[in-house]
This record gives sequence, C-alpha cells and structure tokens, in this order.
Amino acid sequence: VRILVTAGPTREYLDPVRFLSNPSSGRMGFACAKAAARAGHEVLLLSGPVDLPDPAGVRVVRIESAAELHREALRAWPRMDAAIATAAVGDWRPKARSATKLKKTDGELLLRLVRTKDVLLELGRRKGGRRLVGFALETGDGARQALLKYERKNLDFVVLNGPASFGAGRMDADVYREGAVVRRFRGAAKDAVARWLVSALEGLDRTPRRS
Amino acid sequence: VRILVTAGPTREYLDPVRFLSNPSSGRMGFACAKAAARAGHEVLLLSGPVDLPDPAGVRVVRIESAAELHREALRAWPRMDAAIATAAVGDWRPKARSATKLKKTDGELLLRLVRTKDVLLELGRRKGGRRLVGFALETGDGARQALLKYERKNLDFVVLNGPASFGAGRMDADVYREGAVVRRFRGAAKDAVARWLVSALEGLDRTPRRS
Repeated sequence: VRILVTAGPTREYLDPVRFLSNPSSGRMGFACAKAAARAGHEVLLLSGPVDLPDPAGVRVVRIESAAELHREALRAWPRMDAAIATAAVGDWRPKARSATKLKKTDGELLLRLVRTKDVLLELGRRKGGRRLVGFALETGDGARQALLKYERKNLDFVVLNGPASFGAGRMDADVYREGAVVRRFRGAAKDAVARWLVSALEGLDRTPRRS
Repeated sequence: VRILVTAGPTREYLDPVRFLSNPSSGRMGFACAKAAARAGHEVLLLSGPVDLPDPAGVRVVRIESAAELHREALRAWPRMDAAIATAAVGDWRPKARSATKLKKTDGELLLRLVRTKDVLLELGRRKGGRRLVGFALETGDGARQALLKYERKNLDFVVLNGPASFGAGRMDADVYREGAVVRRFRGAAKDAVARWLVSALEGLDRTPRRS
C-alpha cells in the first residue's frame, strides 16, 4: 500500500537567520519510512530539516515550514492509503517574517506568534477509509492528551512519548487505540517501534474507525 | 598556542520542546578547530547542538544556550591565547521558560524576548594581548556592519559572510582587518578558509591592536 510518512522538525522563520523550532531529529520518521519500504510498501517521506540521508527505496521530499508540510501532505493524501505522522510540526509561527536580519535592539522584543495549520487534524478530516497514526509528545498528563488527540484527529493509533525521545535511538512509548494502551515500549529501538507500527497498520482493515 | 573555537547555533527554549535557534551547522567552527589542531595548537571547541563528530585531538565541550556558551567561553578565556568565534549565538531568548509544554491556544501568542549576553563583546573586553576573530553574518549593508563589529568587539579579524553559508561546505567571505578587506574568498571550501584564518592568526604579534 501507499504510505505517507512525515518526519523531523519544522522551522518557522522570523527573519532570514532566526527561527522557532524543536529538537526533533527525524529518526523515528526515517525508521518508519525504512520499515514500510522494507515491508514492500510505496513510501513518500516528507521531512523537515534533519541530518539524515534519504532511506533506500523511499521517495523523499524535504520541507522546511509547517505551511510547506501542510501543502505537501494534503496534496499527497488523496493518493495514499495510510499515514504515519511523526513530524514535530511547529504549532506557532511568527506573524511577520522580516526580509532582512533583525537588528539587535536594547530591551525586550515582543514576538507576535500565530497558529500554524494543524496538518494531522486536516489529514484526519479527509481520511475516508485511510489509516492514520499520530504521535503525542507530552510532558504533563500524557495519557489524557494522547486520548484527546486520538479522538480529535480521527486516528487509528496514537503513540505517546516524551521529550527524552528527541534525537535518541531508543524510546519509551505507549501506543493507544480506542481508549486503551495496546502496546508499551520501554527503551525500545526506534527501528523496532517503527516495524511494529507498520505491522499494526497492515493488520487493520480499511473500514472507517467510526461508522 | 591555545585556541578557543566556538561553533554551531544556540537554542533558547520557551518550553521543554520549543526553542529559538538558527540554521548554523557548525561546519565552519569544526573546520577551524581541525585546522588549528593540525597546525599543532591546543584547541578547546565549544559547540552548540550540531550533528558533527568531535574532531581528533580537540577538546570538545557541548553547550546548548547562549548563557552556557557565555559561561564556558569566559571561564576558559584567561587560559587562552586566541579565539575564533564562529558560533551563531542567539541574540534573544524567551524571558520566561515554561517547565511544561505550552498548550496550544487559539489566536495569537505574545512571546517576550530579552537579549542574551554578548559573548564576543565580553571576550573583546577581556582581551589583553590575545587575538580574536569574529564572524559577521549580514543580509543588508554587510561591510558597514562588519566594520562596526570589528571596532565594537575589539577584533583582529572579522569575517563577513551571508546566510547562504549556512550548512554549506563552501562559502563566500570577506576578511577585514583595520578597516580594509585583507582577503576575499568566493566559493571557497570552509576547510580552506579555516586554514587561512589559523595561519593569519599565527602571523599576528601579541601586541594589543590599539595601544
């Protein structure tokens, strides 16, 4: 089947040399793309700026901002059968982007941020019979946030993890489906979590989650 | 001689998973550290978060924020003979850093930024007979900004370049000393620019620039 994978951070620029971003390394997404390709699927990987080479047998499109990811993901979605959305998409971007480097000024600078488009929400809305896996990165009451995300974004699985996963090769993760944990990983290699997710997607039938 | 090299970007966090940063890859700084070590110097490399391995024969200390870089650089400076400051140090940081992930809210978010400490300025002020090379990354009237930086920060050389250098292996750069360009590089390998800078530092005597 045709699987869309999103990976890495986004960068939201305030001027040509400064941006808002996050520490995502792209490793989880690249691991998912590799696992899906090895399982024989046709994979499109949309990746933010990361220092990882294109995985073999995967079509890779590099993006930078949340807006670019939104555009590419929504464009590809009608042709896809499933998506694994690991990208750490910036939730806010500077309202204005200066064409030249902002000069240092004394005192405080007020940076006005506006919300970016919610890529995962949009994929969930246009889902039809497609399968959709989302990730929830939480620091507080993770389970509650993950379940809210599962419902609001019309997911088939939500993977709850914490900031310790960033950049690491291993991770702790709880995978939820329909309100319950279906798999717990502790100190698991991201490659192993990725292979499990691809298998789990293969195990789902194509009927919509809620009829 | 003992040479301090700073490299890479800094990250200024607003919460555990979001930060202000810049696209510096650390390549110029790592090239300078390598060139200095190969020329027989004792090198301390202070690097922000980059995906580059420690260069052979170089002591590497990894930092994350401008405040950490400031602390480590000023601590090391009395023991050093020279510094090549390639780090793209964040000029602003969020005034407050949330201990938990900020929840998405509708509408705008006002982010209050304050200035970080100016590491290069502080090194220049405590310079004595040491040698100091700074980098100016400019998008507008670069020459004027570079010369201002040269004077204000008490430099021996200032290297003017543009955002196109970020992440690339090659660069355009104009090196200034005492108001004039002493070397122009066009499409030069960063390794070559680094070797030139180390040689140029070796060619300076240790009398203060202005007596």
